[in-house]
Amino acid sequence: MEEFKLMNLKGTSDFLPDEQIIRNKIINILRNTFESYGFLPVETPVLCYYDLLASKYAGGAEILKEVYKLTDQGKRLIGLRYDLTVPFSKVIGMNKGLILPFKRYEIGKVFRDGPVKLGRAREFYQCDVDACGTESPNAEIEYFMMTREVFKKLNIDVEIRYNNRKFLSGLLEYAGVKKENISSFIISVDKLDKISREDIEKELIEHTNIEIIEKVFNLFDKSLDELNNELVSNLNDNLSEGLKELNELTNLINELGLNEICVFTPFLARGLEIYTGTVWEVFDKSLNFKSALGGGGRYDNIITNFLHDGNTYPAIGCSFGLEPIYELLKEKEQTNLKKYDVYVYEFNNDSNLFKISELLRKNGYRVLSELNSIKLKKAMNIANRENIDKVILIGEDELKENSVTIKNMITGNQEKVKIDEIVEKIKSI
Amino acid sequence: MEEFKLMNLKGTSDFLPDEQIIRNKIINILRNTFESYGFLPVETPVLCYYDLLASKYAGGAEILKEVYKLTDQGKRLIGLRYDLTVPFSKVIGMNKGLILPFKRYEIGKVFRDGPVKLGRAREFYQCDVDACGTESPNAEIEYFMMTREVFKKLNIDVEIRYNNRKFLSGLLEYAGVKKENISSFIISVDKLDKISREDIEKELIEHTNIEIIEKVFNLFDKSLDELNNELVSNLNDNLSEGLKELNELTNLINELGLNEICVFTPFLARGLEIYTGTVWEVFDKSLNFKSALGGGGRYDNIITNFLHDGNTYPAIGCSFGLEPIYELLKEKEQTNLKKYDVYVYEFNNDSNLFKISELLRKNGYRVLSELNSIKLKKAMNIANRENIDKVILIGEDELKENSVTIKNMITGNQEKVKIDEIVEKIKSI
Repeated sequence: MEEFKLMNLKGTSDFLPDEQIIRNKIINILRNTFESYGFLPVETPVLCYYDLLASKYAGGAEILKEVYKLTDQGKRLIGLRYDLTVPFSKVIGMNKGLILPFKRYEIGKVFRDGPVKLGRAREFYQCDVDACGTESPNAEIEYFMMTREVFKKLNIDVEIRYNNRKFLSGLLEYAGVKKENISSFIISVDKLDKISREDIEKELIEHTNIEIIEKVFNLFDKSLDELNNELVSNLNDNLSEGLKELNELTNLINELGLNEICVFTPFLARGLEIYTGTVWEVFDKSLNFKSALGGGGRYDNIITNFLHDGNTYPAIGCSFGLEPIYELLKEKEQTNLKKYDVYVYEFNNDSNLFKISELLRKNGYRVLSELNSIKLKKAMNIANRENIDKVILIGEDELKENSVTIKNMITGNQEKVKIDEIVEKIKSI
Repeated sequence: MEEFKLMNLKGTSDFLPDEQIIRNKIINILRNTFESYGFLPVETPVLCYYDLLASKYAGGAEILKEVYKLTDQGKRLIGLRYDLTVPFSKVIGMNKGLILPFKRYEIGKVFRDGPVKLGRAREFYQCDVDACGTESPNAEIEYFMMTREVFKKLNIDVEIRYNNRKFLSGLLEYAGVKKENISSFIISVDKLDKISREDIEKELIEHTNIEIIEKVFNLFDKSLDELNNELVSNLNDNLSEGLKELNELTNLINELGLNEICVFTPFLARGLEIYTGTVWEVFDKSLNFKSALGGGGRYDNIITNFLHDGNTYPAIGCSFGLEPIYELLKEKEQTNLKKYDVYVYEFNNDSNLFKISELLRKNGYRVLSELNSIKLKKAMNIANRENIDKVILIGEDELKENSVTIKNMITGNQEKVKIDEIVEKIKSI
């Protein structure tokens, strides 16, 4: 042990079975739901030309500080991908034959050499679902329905907060915020669900007078209906277009019963420059868990600017947070985690162990076969320790009658069962 | 486009949906089969302390040349993992509470900055299934059964070639190969299924006389039964122990019907120093495809030496090659690849599109809903182009009768179907 430290790098983790089973379950739900909505799987490399990641229309200067950088044996400057959006844009640019709209999902690891805190690791998963080449306002609805379905399957009550970036900019302009201050104003009000109005006022007062701030907060307190009644004249282009999009979206939300979980949230911006239309974020409804579980929006300029090939690439997409979802679920899910369905033990180690285990495996059961020659008592301890409900005991006497003993570990009952009835019996327990 | 090249690094690839759907299918089969055999999922980080990877009992000097190395912002020397065995050993060393035997699988990317050739990329998947802490000779059988099951599900006819490393060393010693030449002799004969005897003879003749070489080749031509008859006296320890293990394993193979696919292959070594008992490799039975699709063996010293903590960690494991399996399957699988199950089109874009799509999604179908306002003819083109068999057409007149039209794209038939009978009807097509 002199030569190396047996430890993980800060911001990286091993996930042992108790954890990984739950993570895989989440990923399976995401994957299946994405595919049911017609999104197709794509996989892109972790290793990228650094220049690609550093392009000014990629992630920007802030994120570039956090790129893991290295030089390979061929002296190429390489970066580890920090998101899945740059690779998505690259795929679209490199495959001109792709038919648009192109709907893809990618679930993969990204790497960031930045500060480590809860839910912010140095390598972590992104689960991105994007559609490139669609301007249809209905795409948003599909994302909301998909989000509802994902969290229903995960058994998490969520709220989808939504807004429109054109509307937000237009509303601030309408309230009197100077054009040059709108961006920083947006950054401040975007935090309204995290910090108090007083604190945000302190940020805003540096470049905006109090009357305007009050007017904005006042507008934020109104429902969409009230805003529609109030905002009838002197609308700027952003406001009228944004309001129109919001109204159409909201009508569909109501019609499809999505209003149970979708909440219009007029201050939501979801960061600064990226989004161009609808934006949304997903939160645990109980709000015991403060981190967003996902979010997305329309971004019509990113791929267009990145590829810069004369075409336009309107796009919309969202991301589900594997790490916060896992953090939210792990305690509950671990309580009664089943790692195996059946445990098979043979008194005299022999080939019957394999034959009977195989029978169950072919029927989809996760079977732990006892390969070591151990006493029955020890085997029972293993079944208990591993929380396995069903045990099959193979003994010589029963075998003569083509039978085995099946023990229900919950009730303690045991029963002699014919070999060709094992699967049926296990199913019924 | 001035700032960066829109390209991938050599030895890395994007996998588009036509490819990724097949890769995911392979991974799902592996995962489900591993779990049915009681192997549990584990995930370890890509980023590792370089010292860990460079430990002399890790991958060794050869592989170290190929480690991607970098320094992070905290000046730590980091390497990208080049296999999943070092991380597995690390997990065992760091989690002393783990109950042995510990059976885990990990499917994950590894990175090697080495020469690129067919099937040898710079980042690729390893699919490793290992058990640490078991000396049971029955573990081998479980691996063979699992391998049979994996390839049955993948619809690939395979042959498992197996041997025993103690037996092979012992046999060479018995034939008169000097102890100091046994290792290099093994490296040469290990290639007997790839290059001719003449070429191997040329390698061997440098340090062994022709009589011994002939004697070895002669022994390699015998069946296990013939060897058992011949090898009765003057057996060295390795040979007698190896033969005993081989015989026990072969008896179980015959008893369980595994002899259909398992072939005793006396020259198989599977590399040099690592393995200590049974070894095996899996090949496409048609042999049109020359690369091994997987392989494994018993390695009782690796983890023991790596952890060096006073305990012994006997282990056995195998690896399935996602890349060769994918190469073998892709042509056949892509011929009639289905990316979607149903395409839904509404004449007047409306919320019915979402409701009916949702109905099918809840029943497990992959549904592409047409979000854009396009003409029917264009929609039919999309259905054809995307190779979608079932199309649902939602029209106003049919809606008045609570119905839609379902079109079978294979037969061309179309039929009016009540909305609450859609799922039933789609299932029947």
